[in-house]
Amino acid sequence: MTVELISVGTELLLGNIVNTNAAYLAERCAALGLSCYYQSVVGDNEERLKDVVRRGLSRSDILILSGGLGPTKDDLTKEVTAEVFGRELHEDAHTKERIEEYFRRVHTDQVTPNNWKQALVPEGAKVIDNHNGTAPGLIIEGDGKTAILLPGPPNEIRPMFERDVAPYLNGLNPEGIYSKMVKICGIGESKAETMIADLMDAQSNPTIAPYAKTGEVHLRVTAKALGEEEADELMRPVIEELYHRFGDKIFTTEEEVTLEEAIVEFLDKRGMTVTTAESCTAGLLAGRLMNAAGASNVYREGYITYADEAKEKLLGVRHETLMRFGAVSAQTAEEMARGAAGAAGADAAVSVTGIAGPGGGTDEKPVGLVYIGCCVKGKVRVEEFHFTGNRAKNREYSVARALTLLREELLRAD
Amino acid sequence: MTVELISVGTELLLGNIVNTNAAYLAERCAALGLSCYYQSVVGDNEERLKDVVRRGLSRSDILILSGGLGPTKDDLTKEVTAEVFGRELHEDAHTKERIEEYFRRVHTDQVTPNNWKQALVPEGAKVIDNHNGTAPGLIIEGDGKTAILLPGPPNEIRPMFERDVAPYLNGLNPEGIYSKMVKICGIGESKAETMIADLMDAQSNPTIAPYAKTGEVHLRVTAKALGEEEADELMRPVIEELYHRFGDKIFTTEEEVTLEEAIVEFLDKRGMTVTTAESCTAGLLAGRLMNAAGASNVYREGYITYADEAKEKLLGVRHETLMRFGAVSAQTAEEMARGAAGAAGADAAVSVTGIAGPGGGTDEKPVGLVYIGCCVKGKVRVEEFHFTGNRAKNREYSVARALTLLREELLRAD
Repeated sequence: MTVELISVGTELLLGNIVNTNAAYLAERCAALGLSCYYQSVVGDNEERLKDVVRRGLSRSDILILSGGLGPTKDDLTKEVTAEVFGRELHEDAHTKERIEEYFRRVHTDQVTPNNWKQALVPEGAKVIDNHNGTAPGLIIEGDGKTAILLPGPPNEIRPMFERDVAPYLNGLNPEGIYSKMVKICGIGESKAETMIADLMDAQSNPTIAPYAKTGEVHLRVTAKALGEEEADELMRPVIEELYHRFGDKIFTTEEEVTLEEAIVEFLDKRGMTVTTAESCTAGLLAGRLMNAAGASNVYREGYITYADEAKEKLLGVRHETLMRFGAVSAQTAEEMARGAAGAAGADAAVSVTGIAGPGGGTDEKPVGLVYIGCCVKGKVRVEEFHFTGNRAKNREYSVARALTLLREELLRAD
Repeated sequence: MTVELISVGTELLLGNIVNTNAAYLAERCAALGLSCYYQSVVGDNEERLKDVVRRGLSRSDILILSGGLGPTKDDLTKEVTAEVFGRELHEDAHTKERIEEYFRRVHTDQVTPNNWKQALVPEGAKVIDNHNGTAPGLIIEGDGKTAILLPGPPNEIRPMFERDVAPYLNGLNPEGIYSKMVKICGIGESKAETMIADLMDAQSNPTIAPYAKTGEVHLRVTAKALGEEEADELMRPVIEELYHRFGDKIFTTEEEVTLEEAIVEFLDKRGMTVTTAESCTAGLLAGRLMNAAGASNVYREGYITYADEAKEKLLGVRHETLMRFGAVSAQTAEEMARGAAGAAGADAAVSVTGIAGPGGGTDEKPVGLVYIGCCVKGKVRVEEFHFTGNRAKNREYSVARALTLLREELLRAD
């Protein structure tokens, strides 16, 4: 079975956005055992879109179209694809109800007549509910070909693909594709790849593919098998070998578990609490930690202390320390972590102080210098980092490193 | 003049990498006044690549191919394009010398016979020197069509494009493309589009294209003109009309200015300070506000108060208020905002308290219910929101709405 990806949107043709949907869909299709030979990008133009859809159907079994399902006149993906398949559009009661419900919940004053365009469905098409927006997905089958239409926003397309499209595509293929994600923190990508170079060379079924994320390396282990049990049996020895090599640097083997969730679960199981004291990251660390549902069991309060006086007032950092070593120093990071744990009455605390840039750097303390402190049960460890990104990247890396340090210190104290 | 982008590489088809080259080339071509109607991705396969190149030449004036210029047998872009143009390959002495020199400088031990494949040039082609790698770029012209071949690595393609390809393309096209981004907050996408439907229908030069971002709508106004001055003259009346319709919902007309930067600049100019008191967003609001470089002038400290006791202790929310109305209530949001302003000694404060989900919802207070409070110079306004996303989206929308509310209240008090 071959699949072809068609991304619809003028903003892609103008280069205003990067086509991350194509990379996501391509990766997921490959994991599902489908061969993808072509990807196209085309704008919201009837003739050109029709041409690309026809061309796609002439050379591929399945088309996945993303984008162009919005409520405006510009949005043509559904209309054009239905025409190529020779299908009329009808209002779908279920979809209309879902859109009405969506608007009731969100902002009723903003519903305009053009929104009802999104309730039109080609005859015979399967509807894929959209839980994060108003445009439903659609599956149109005919003459041995299939077109799958999905909305453009990543937060809509991804859950729809995982929940409905992947099982549908899997059903077209008797051999299923099963995968586990071995997630590692505290080891760089090059080093991680070197550590498993022999496994990657020898791989056939299952395969191992590495992906770098900020401060993490993810290894996707993928097996082709006739069922989940067979897949698990194929993957087990590989995953055991990865544990043997990476040890407790592996924080999960579950696709959907994030580093912050692993940490929150660890704390929750032990009835421990954590707090944060942030300068340059200014809330991003706490914000990420609290992405984990259920974080309220382990986190009660946190501190954003940008100004020196705030570090003194809220965390009890000594004036002398700030004067002598400066706000961006190992000493300040240590007192911030210890002070935060005390102020919040928490078992653990993480502190971040650094120079995210673009301004504020000096020869002695350049942009990218960040100190991260971690206090667990009264013991403090401080690490110095030198990041080389822009302001946003330096802050993002600081957060990733802070979580990694917290996890290491929690494991050490356990 | 129309241009078409063809990206060659199996790693793109497998989704192992994101096609940032296409976004970069598309944006640069648009800025050079070239219309791009199609982008394609194809693998290192002779027949399929030939098909895509032929198809491209049949519908576009200029093809820009990236990738597939490497030294291995897999790399076919040059061979296939030369064949389509009916050109023989010859060894180019200048290029061979550059490759030899490159290997002398970098890693002499890694030169293999297949590297000399990169010194082969189609007859009549212009060579574009590569200062960061061994594969030269090539420009092949024939029958009124042009193919420009560039290597895949971003650190090679970008300098080559800027130094040699952009001036070449500019020579083909005297008219340039200029644009402004009108950014709006506090109005939904559908409503914004309805408000300018007549302008969009009537548009020719300049054009208006809307893009939705979380809590914002961006309108790109684009003019074709012979220079910046002419472009400004073309765009001025359109931008004036947009100001007439959207008023102070427009927070900037600069591409690179974000909502948080607009707010920080507003505060900074007036010597005002702001603070944040967050429950469900737990630092994300502060974190986003502090994305703005220079935010340290206007922000000294902030509070993450997840637990009820933290709201009492750090913000002075009354125990009675929490007992009677609950932590997720307009009353608590109001006291959080007022309390934060007082505790931080700030001129303005924003508070967020809500149920981000997935747990914690009740019939009376469902997941997605969020109260945002804003205190400016002692006056507090509270708004109630009902978001319908998952935990992450509800938090992201809360942050966007909180910034919008803060901006509105700052303008009102000004």
